[in-house]
Amino acid sequence: MRLARIGEPGSEVPVVLQDGKYFSLQSIAPDISGDFWTSDGLARTTAALDAGQLPEIDAAGSRIGAPIARPSSVFCIGMNYAAHAAESGNLPPSAPIVFHKAPNTVVGPNDAVAIPRGSLKTDWEVELGVVISQQASYLASPEDASDYIAGFVAVNDLSEREFQLEISGGQWSKGKSAAGFCPTGPVLVTPDEVDAGNLRLRSWVNGEIRQDSSTADLIFDVNFLIYNLSQYMVLEPGDLICTGTPEGVALSGRFPYLRAGDVVEIEIDGLGRQSQTFIDA
Amino acid sequence: MRLARIGEPGSEVPVVLQDGKYFSLQSIAPDISGDFWTSDGLARTTAALDAGQLPEIDAAGSRIGAPIARPSSVFCIGMNYAAHAAESGNLPPSAPIVFHKAPNTVVGPNDAVAIPRGSLKTDWEVELGVVISQQASYLASPEDASDYIAGFVAVNDLSEREFQLEISGGQWSKGKSAAGFCPTGPVLVTPDEVDAGNLRLRSWVNGEIRQDSSTADLIFDVNFLIYNLSQYMVLEPGDLICTGTPEGVALSGRFPYLRAGDVVEIEIDGLGRQSQTFIDA
Repeated sequence: MRLARIGEPGSEVPVVLQDGKYFSLQSIAPDISGDFWTSDGLARTTAALDAGQLPEIDAAGSRIGAPIARPSSVFCIGMNYAAHAAESGNLPPSAPIVFHKAPNTVVGPNDAVAIPRGSLKTDWEVELGVVISQQASYLASPEDASDYIAGFVAVNDLSEREFQLEISGGQWSKGKSAAGFCPTGPVLVTPDEVDAGNLRLRSWVNGEIRQDSSTADLIFDVNFLIYNLSQYMVLEPGDLICTGTPEGVALSGRFPYLRAGDVVEIEIDGLGRQSQTFIDA
Repeated sequence: MRLARIGEPGSEVPVVLQDGKYFSLQSIAPDISGDFWTSDGLARTTAALDAGQLPEIDAAGSRIGAPIARPSSVFCIGMNYAAHAAESGNLPPSAPIVFHKAPNTVVGPNDAVAIPRGSLKTDWEVELGVVISQQASYLASPEDASDYIAGFVAVNDLSEREFQLEISGGQWSKGKSAAGFCPTGPVLVTPDEVDAGNLRLRSWVNGEIRQDSSTADLIFDVNFLIYNLSQYMVLEPGDLICTGTPEGVALSGRFPYLRAGDVVEIEIDGLGRQSQTFIDA
């Protein structure tokens, strides 16, 4: 099943997609938030869709929002592809590296993004995002993790490298949380339709390819990440985990950083494509 | 003015304290969240209190919750006292070091805290907490910050040092976000009653003093922190900023880490006292 949120920021309407049509979920739930997943929202959506009870809406020309409401936490995993760790000057990690983006960075997949004031090093990062379906604490094994996955989304984990690496004593979040720095979507796809360990993920800047890898190269896979995080914190329904980016970012030195007027596109197999125009803050 | 939240987890009643009595704020707002601050909650509280319109409630024997609802973000500032930076093996930072605690760590000031499974290095950190009153982005100067402060709270920024420093590639959040790791309160005190730059803050373990310093020793003061953070991210109403801890934590090597049965107390002048009993997870 493919879910989305359509409309202006702060007033998005939750929808389900079927055969290229959009059906409103407003009779099911006010939003695609943690409550949606814990109140059997998916089963109720399926039943209502099958019964023809959901009104079709005309989404032509509408803004596409992030397919999830603002999460409680946005967890990010660092250096989770060996080639990206190398291009960043690091060895592959022996355990998942965890940091946060502020949850208010989650925006629509095609919203314009402001380059932060004073930024010279704004960078892209295509990532597979995982949305949590129920509270997760102390999972017994990675195999149990599949019961905690609501679905998958494409994420651009935008990063300002000077803020991240040079002026926060080595703690990365300062360069990860500028307004609009977490374009998410366009859709959330449920696990039954996704082979999370075998997805091609790509990014482009002004039409030139930058990243082109596969989630098969993840050092720590989705199930292990959920299991591992659950040993150290309590994951909440609706939380977003960004699983790390592959090689091909500007930090490598191979490409220039972003400037106003640049267009970044990212795409993950089966999860759709994003396009952001960068503007001055 | 002094605000608090009284009752069991998830069903706390917001209250205002006056002359040792508790008056319910339920007619003013459902909770002490971002909406409270942006909907003129404080002015409406004052007016209703002066008019005798708020019912007194009997709080005897009730649990004290955190004085704020779950924030959008809990920002923490690292190494913000020179002597603590030194005991941690670091130089004082040249700019604020920012990392996150997961927002679901915010709990009541006297709730029992579970030592995480596998933890050998659970540590205390008394800190001055600042609650944000309105959205803050790109403040022009530190002097402007006072318009963005809802109030001050005592926080114990609990930390698991192995999780923080040894198994997350140097990113600290993994050791900062276990369940219950952000005891907050007992009260929120509005800025008119607090001299934030001159507060004694102390911690004890089993009655023995551990930390005893003053916010006068903060490297980056409250106003500068709000100004600085606002250059890199958008602060939301209700957000909590933990301003850093002074020397005297177990990480220094001078004291043992916490074990089940230990009792930690923290106190900040004018902001009240906390007491947590530690238990096994």
